[in-house]
Amino acid sequence: MENLLIGVGTAGLKDSGNPDILVVLLPYSCESSMLFTENYFKAGSVIYTEGIAKKRKKLRAILVNSGNANCGTGKEGIEHARMMAEKVAQRLDLRYDEVAVFSTGIIGEPLPIDRVLNAIEGATSSLKEMDLKEAAEVISTTDSFPKYETRENTFGFAKGAGMINPSMATMLSFVFTRYDLEYEILHDVHKDVVDKSFNSITVDGCQSTNDASVLVSLGSKPLDIKALKEEAEGVFLSLAKKIVADGEGATRVIRITVKNATLKMKAKEIAKSVANSLLVKTAVYGRDPNWGRILAAAGSTEFPIDPFSVKIYIGNHLLYDGKPHPKAVKYAKKYLESVKEIDITVDLREGRETWTYYSSDIGYEYIKINAEYHT
Amino acid sequence: MENLLIGVGTAGLKDSGNPDILVVLLPYSCESSMLFTENYFKAGSVIYTEGIAKKRKKLRAILVNSGNANCGTGKEGIEHARMMAEKVAQRLDLRYDEVAVFSTGIIGEPLPIDRVLNAIEGATSSLKEMDLKEAAEVISTTDSFPKYETRENTFGFAKGAGMINPSMATMLSFVFTRYDLEYEILHDVHKDVVDKSFNSITVDGCQSTNDASVLVSLGSKPLDIKALKEEAEGVFLSLAKKIVADGEGATRVIRITVKNATLKMKAKEIAKSVANSLLVKTAVYGRDPNWGRILAAAGSTEFPIDPFSVKIYIGNHLLYDGKPHPKAVKYAKKYLESVKEIDITVDLREGRETWTYYSSDIGYEYIKINAEYHT
Repeated sequence: MENLLIGVGTAGLKDSGNPDILVVLLPYSCESSMLFTENYFKAGSVIYTEGIAKKRKKLRAILVNSGNANCGTGKEGIEHARMMAEKVAQRLDLRYDEVAVFSTGIIGEPLPIDRVLNAIEGATSSLKEMDLKEAAEVISTTDSFPKYETRENTFGFAKGAGMINPSMATMLSFVFTRYDLEYEILHDVHKDVVDKSFNSITVDGCQSTNDASVLVSLGSKPLDIKALKEEAEGVFLSLAKKIVADGEGATRVIRITVKNATLKMKAKEIAKSVANSLLVKTAVYGRDPNWGRILAAAGSTEFPIDPFSVKIYIGNHLLYDGKPHPKAVKYAKKYLESVKEIDITVDLREGRETWTYYSSDIGYEYIKINAEYHT
Repeated sequence: MENLLIGVGTAGLKDSGNPDILVVLLPYSCESSMLFTENYFKAGSVIYTEGIAKKRKKLRAILVNSGNANCGTGKEGIEHARMMAEKVAQRLDLRYDEVAVFSTGIIGEPLPIDRVLNAIEGATSSLKEMDLKEAAEVISTTDSFPKYETRENTFGFAKGAGMINPSMATMLSFVFTRYDLEYEILHDVHKDVVDKSFNSITVDGCQSTNDASVLVSLGSKPLDIKALKEEAEGVFLSLAKKIVADGEGATRVIRITVKNATLKMKAKEIAKSVANSLLVKTAVYGRDPNWGRILAAAGSTEFPIDPFSVKIYIGNHLLYDGKPHPKAVKYAKKYLESVKEIDITVDLREGRETWTYYSSDIGYEYIKINAEYHT
């Protein structure tokens, strides 16, 4: 990745002792759009970097620590984030307010700030060409595989596995595009693709304190808006699907499509309700084509559905269209047993709007991870 | 229970072969308030009985079948409910539109209507004095114990275990009071106590297709509104807590109190968010005093909280008040290990409003029951 340098350090924040500090140095001050969790209980790093985002819109460097969320750590947490930004700025001769700081990991433990600042010294003294896989590995926490993706002029890396939810949860994503964009267009494109990707996935419906998505314009290519949108959608959606596939203990990715709705918002809300239904998730885990649970979830939003007209499919097997189709059940069961990415379709038969949400099943492993993961 | 008769029958709707048809005969036409699930995917029996509720407000008899939800069964399901009401009316010489019909059980299988009508014949030919425990047993499905409760002049029975959620889920409740009330007051009292009881409990956040709560005024005592409210709250809250305690695989009841909020609605929404958080539920299952997850759930509603002022308690152990209290963690852990009914308190320190929500933990047993329960 030309002109993009990374530095890696180890502050001992992860039990594994693996690298946990990542510095990304951009070639110059770049237009950057940042989106953050909507949770009111925000990490110190998020509060700090939101301040940076409001003040000016160009970035020169990105700093991520993993293994400690720097959250619930009081005002000291904000101060720690500022010290980390200043350290990067001092070492690389940058303005401190062009450095964005992100954290992910355990909530409620103060950062061992001296060790972190030392590790930043190490990371900034050995910069090298960006390697997406390595960058993804450094920021990972409970991830079971590194997540990165490339299109012609757009590429990025992300982390996230548990606690993923509609409003972005314990998810960090950094995407870079060579296309030259003004801030306003960049931010619009960013909001749009995040809505279709990170804000349309769910693992357990819980909202994180630390999520952030960053889209940086490197400005080395003249803007081709059509190509940019296609590439950004490709990269963001691929990263989002990797996060869902890595849902804690997941054995199936579930793609829920609500079609033929009167409103896009309605299609989205109903898809989200099905995606978040624990009963649907456990049914898929049990390979049970339980269309009744799908319909119960679809019917539980504020938007009316007509139970005598709606159609429910699992794969291409029609299970319900105002009445049950018992003969399709065994084929749908075979489909759940044999296919890794499950399609559930709710056809409202009333309009033309569609939305797709991505979810995963939930089984014993999820309970194990979340009942035994310590504070 | 003077003047209240029940009849019991068996239509073979339960795998166990246990009784599954309950007829309750009221002494005369009684003022009755009925509240139903807000799910748009309603059972045939719910659609039918909502029609009855709209047409006239007095009831003479109640019919419940358990083991089959009569839901997702198309327009035939509504017709079956009507046939069941007519059968009761014909056998007991009543008006058919004074008979309310309720169903609970598996979704999507047509009722074996001939067997059900035969069982109604049996049930109506051997009426006897109401026994709350027996009535509760007949309407039970996945319940592990019968749920009933008595106060001086108010008493009732209920069923419900899995799939319980804020808007009443696979929960049926029938409460009778001797106090003589006009319909309007009865309905107001009913809505108020349901809000504080059945609508403030959650097991998995999923909303059912069949829920109903019925409050009947037997009219044998002059109204004492204070006594009625106290007794109704006592009976409804006790039934609701029994349902939570019977949450599929639950080992702990969790009582979440949000206090000192500016608005009652805000206290309720935040309590609900904590109550529904899978991460909080699995943490309690793992006996982990994870206040970070509580705070993350509290911060994820539309209502702002101030993370530097809010206090989090587990039991009476203060774990966070703008900063963590690490020394309290081991005491909170001991509390989680030794107490069956867990108190979580979120003190917003901004106003005077309070709301309490009841939830349960979620462990391996929940997954087992819901992954292996067939369509």
